[in-house]
Amino acid sequence: MTNLSDLTLGHRVMAMIEALAAHSDEFGRITRLYLSPAHRAAADTTLGFMRDAGLAAHIDALGSVVGRIEGRNPEAPALLIGSHIDSVVDAGRYDGNLGVVLGIVAAEALKEQGIVPACPIEIVAFGDEENVRFPTNLSTSYALAGRYDPAWLDGRDQDGIALRDALIGFGGDPNGIAALARDPGRYRGYLEVHIEQGPLLEARELPVGIVSAINGITRARAHVVGEAGHAGTVPMTMRRDALAAVAEMIGIVERAGSLRADTVATVGVAQVQPGAINVIPARVDFTLDARSPDDAVRQAMVHDIVTECRAAAQRRGVAFTIEPFMDSPATPMDKGLIGHLENAVKGLGIEPLHLPSGAGHDAVAMATLCPSAMLFVRCKGGISHNPAESITVEDADVAARVLIETVKRVAG
Amino acid sequence: MTNLSDLTLGHRVMAMIEALAAHSDEFGRITRLYLSPAHRAAADTTLGFMRDAGLAAHIDALGSVVGRIEGRNPEAPALLIGSHIDSVVDAGRYDGNLGVVLGIVAAEALKEQGIVPACPIEIVAFGDEENVRFPTNLSTSYALAGRYDPAWLDGRDQDGIALRDALIGFGGDPNGIAALARDPGRYRGYLEVHIEQGPLLEARELPVGIVSAINGITRARAHVVGEAGHAGTVPMTMRRDALAAVAEMIGIVERAGSLRADTVATVGVAQVQPGAINVIPARVDFTLDARSPDDAVRQAMVHDIVTECRAAAQRRGVAFTIEPFMDSPATPMDKGLIGHLENAVKGLGIEPLHLPSGAGHDAVAMATLCPSAMLFVRCKGGISHNPAESITVEDADVAARVLIETVKRVAG
Repeated sequence: MTNLSDLTLGHRVMAMIEALAAHSDEFGRITRLYLSPAHRAAADTTLGFMRDAGLAAHIDALGSVVGRIEGRNPEAPALLIGSHIDSVVDAGRYDGNLGVVLGIVAAEALKEQGIVPACPIEIVAFGDEENVRFPTNLSTSYALAGRYDPAWLDGRDQDGIALRDALIGFGGDPNGIAALARDPGRYRGYLEVHIEQGPLLEARELPVGIVSAINGITRARAHVVGEAGHAGTVPMTMRRDALAAVAEMIGIVERAGSLRADTVATVGVAQVQPGAINVIPARVDFTLDARSPDDAVRQAMVHDIVTECRAAAQRRGVAFTIEPFMDSPATPMDKGLIGHLENAVKGLGIEPLHLPSGAGHDAVAMATLCPSAMLFVRCKGGISHNPAESITVEDADVAARVLIETVKRVAG
Repeated sequence: MTNLSDLTLGHRVMAMIEALAAHSDEFGRITRLYLSPAHRAAADTTLGFMRDAGLAAHIDALGSVVGRIEGRNPEAPALLIGSHIDSVVDAGRYDGNLGVVLGIVAAEALKEQGIVPACPIEIVAFGDEENVRFPTNLSTSYALAGRYDPAWLDGRDQDGIALRDALIGFGGDPNGIAALARDPGRYRGYLEVHIEQGPLLEARELPVGIVSAINGITRARAHVVGEAGHAGTVPMTMRRDALAAVAEMIGIVERAGSLRADTVATVGVAQVQPGAINVIPARVDFTLDARSPDDAVRQAMVHDIVTECRAAAQRRGVAFTIEPFMDSPATPMDKGLIGHLENAVKGLGIEPLHLPSGAGHDAVAMATLCPSAMLFVRCKGGISHNPAESITVEDADVAARVLIETVKRVAG
């Protein structure tokens, strides 16, 4: 293995990250939407990286870049390693790209060390993870799992361009999508490295952490209707103040999220009507986002929130309605792969911290194909989806070594 | 006195209210801003009512309509009765107009009953109470108190028209304002009847109530700055959620307003940034409106609110700033006039309920000239500044009889 102190792997990761960061749809910031010219350029750069690393690589019918090393036993179920190269608007450089680059760096390292894996290894750079341009969600990874819905091709971006036409313009092939589906029997697992996008590793002073599960999410829109009134003339006891009621409900949401381990619950939107300094608020519309790695825990949390908010509304004489519009189950990571990651982390003398993923990832789709696991890398301030996104070369190096060690264990 | 059962006075009040409601700057709803054509038309109608009632009447230099009955002793200090005929946008028909009309109905009743009062009586229909068109506040009543600031003439409406020019267009006289100031020695008091604009009389099933004081008001803008973050990835214990902090502060405001007798405290505005379902709120701007008939109580209430909000902010690690921009003292009503109103109310067999006024009135300005008092009339649902503003003919009749009886006691 590469010298542990010279950060060769970390610097190699950073050099490839820089090269990918040059591809953007906008001048002066990183924006790389699915099937855009910048996505095509980044896919071509990734293809070059893969070929340089000795992989047999191509860009598939949906624009994903796929590179393959054959194993000593070509019939053995393959190991997949991947993440995505599309980005949000005004993105950082690590979200997605880091996992793709680390897969390539791991393949390079195996080659450099003269190691031929026991099974084939496929590195994949997905293109549709951020869910920004089209009304799709993880479409490129779901395609590998055989779960691509052809109706997604009719989805349009805000300029009215259909995904189908954008795909043809990119050089993809709508008729080749069905053939992308992998046979689950021929895959042993999927590994994805990703920046944490949260502050836990930084707080615990750990370079990496092992994802226990990708959180399930409940999202809902809630509405409280009270009665407008003159802020000077309606006595406190005769008010039906919608904002005072929602303030109590926000407290209920905050406590419900804090009560249980690994859960979060957030009110991110609250809109007050009529919204005048001297008028008692008549109506407030707010949102709920509640997440947990355990679906039963999440459902209990949401049930408690709704029950307590109903009681508060009744006590205050205001109307309360809540409409859930997303109930996405949690994706537990595979225990076998977690064990391999844990041993690799411990092997570097690092405490193996297990933590849930609050955000969704391609691993959610890939887990429907084969056993999947994720490694998180510490990012500065927990910041992501922002140009200030940052990791250290030391942590990139640690992540590369953990991934290489894990690949050796899984594909060795 | 007029027959107590035939509601003659109430119907007379309603007829005059209807006539005034016909004057509007907008088709289909009542909008009568200071110095507008509709204000001029309403002033002319009011002038006609006063002359018909036997008053010597004119429109003064600022557009107020002033009618006068001489008393048996022309040297005796006069009694003023008034309210305003301007309105908010999309107003009801009673706010302001009711007090003007009742003054005229009282003068008519005295004449009908062949009573010449001991002292002169002046009825005034002010024109600038709602503070909608120009950046002035009670300018027409402050003029009578000798407190008109000439700088107010330079204030402009949203079309850029200066008050001075609007006044000249109306037929007023900027050079005649100083002469409107009354000699305090020549006035014994000011009486104003107004709809309650609150729900207390309705809840107590009383047609009228006696104002104890016009509340003092503190208004402030507050800002809470926390830290944005991913709603899925930042653990509850590591959040600095600006909205959760403000929710706690809204609870503090609500409790502070409820703790003390006759106080109210309201958060009418709360604006959340960035305001996305999956982002922890970074900043919330909100308003405070706190009122009390007792200035010391109001200041103690605001002090407690600020202290508790600061403590909550510190505990939560968010920044909290608050900028008071209004600190308007309370206006206690005159005890002598309150006594006369109370006797008149009791004389009709009605319980004399004393209540503070949460809203401001011309009586705030007039109290700087002479002893002042107000009678509130029950309005449906406590609703005002709204086309749904409503009072019954029975209550209008009671209010007329209370006012007439009070005038007889004060000017008799």
